[in-house]
Amino acid sequence: MTSRKVAGGAPSDGGVLFQEIWNCPYSMETLPSHGEDIDGGASPSVSMLSEVAARRRITIVGGSIPERSSGRLFNTCCVIGPDGQIKAKHRKLHLFEIDIPGDITFRESDTFTAGQEPTIVDTDVGRIGIGICHDIRFPELAMLYRSRGAHLICYPSAFNMSTGQLLWDLMQKSRAVDNQLFVVTCSPARDPNAESDYMIWGHSSLIGPFGEVIATAGHEEATVVGEIDHSMIQTIR
Amino acid sequence: MTSRKVAGGAPSDGGVLFQEIWNCPYSMETLPSHGEDIDGGASPSVSMLSEVAARRRITIVGGSIPERSSGRLFNTCCVIGPDGQIKAKHRKLHLFEIDIPGDITFRESDTFTAGQEPTIVDTDVGRIGIGICHDIRFPELAMLYRSRGAHLICYPSAFNMSTGQLLWDLMQKSRAVDNQLFVVTCSPARDPNAESDYMIWGHSSLIGPFGEVIATAGHEEATVVGEIDHSMIQTIR
Repeated sequence: MTSRKVAGGAPSDGGVLFQEIWNCPYSMETLPSHGEDIDGGASPSVSMLSEVAARRRITIVGGSIPERSSGRLFNTCCVIGPDGQIKAKHRKLHLFEIDIPGDITFRESDTFTAGQEPTIVDTDVGRIGIGICHDIRFPELAMLYRSRGAHLICYPSAFNMSTGQLLWDLMQKSRAVDNQLFVVTCSPARDPNAESDYMIWGHSSLIGPFGEVIATAGHEEATVVGEIDHSMIQTIR
Repeated sequence: MTSRKVAGGAPSDGGVLFQEIWNCPYSMETLPSHGEDIDGGASPSVSMLSEVAARRRITIVGGSIPERSSGRLFNTCCVIGPDGQIKAKHRKLHLFEIDIPGDITFRESDTFTAGQEPTIVDTDVGRIGIGICHDIRFPELAMLYRSRGAHLICYPSAFNMSTGQLLWDLMQKSRAVDNQLFVVTCSPARDPNAESDYMIWGHSSLIGPFGEVIATAGHEEATVVGEIDHSMIQTIR
């Protein structure tokens, strides 16, 4: 998902959002071996994002990767500025648990430790609040970001088929409408041949402050490009 | 909109929800002349609802009527028990204002005074929170009702075409999903020949705690009947 901020009609700075867990398979068994030490400066994934952000002079909301820290594993999103520096780091607050017998069982808390803090950061594409996937189910987080002046909320995600059809569209639009801001989501594409029972829903989107779909993908691989016009927020409010 | 509570699979007590402003046309010019003094016991509309509730042994969430009180006018919903007594009274909290040049202009606050209190009440069909129409746009009210143990929220409403298509479905489902309870709405039917520029959206619905549509109407006159199974709330949570 890429977006451009529009000021006075002319595209200026750009931003790119990646999906949840993009540096390795989303398999609870193998995730720990892909953990990277971000604070220790030993994260090849974040180093790559920093290099690209600096070279392209863009803001990157870097999806998430498993972060190893003090012997624990977090589901972590780094926001990187056009100077290549990490501007903020969000650790997924609400870990996903599902148990539908005969359909899907998934316990993220067996592997990850939950984060403790909301994350809001000023960037060249606006003031951004960060949530990771299941964080979108909690309206309080989005309301907190709104109260702190967020222009947009980015949710790197990986909804599955069970919750995707019922909730994905609804959650994105209601967070946008209830808080009168932009919501940007990025999901992996669906792999119909995946052996995992965690089949991805897809449908990365950019939603406007009135719930309008500005840009969206299907469930296949795609780059979604949309423009974020901050003046829409004031118009709506 | 009528609903039955289901306990152990057998329908027991029933409830009926009416629309916003059902005792007179929704015209700001003529509304004041239809105001009724509910507290003074001089409301023919509420008397009629009480008589029906007692005769049918049902709970009635009586939509809303213009209530005259101390020289002011409120948009007021009475909840009436199977004994015919008024159990609760909700005055619309968030008055509706819209001004889209060339499309629709509407200022409810020119006529009505806003209520000051949320309303939650125990009835034979469950613990009910009340909101009137534009009140549904405010997630805080629904969250307050959830925190006070509501099983369902009733929103007598009258959305128009401008906001209906964008927001009606979204608002009902997100209040239900975010708070894991039932949402019941009742709207007037659409009159395509109405001379007013306030054209009604319609689509009264009963929504379950996972956002599922249990029963719904189109924009024509209809009675919507659905069953509310309280055990679904615990299953979802």
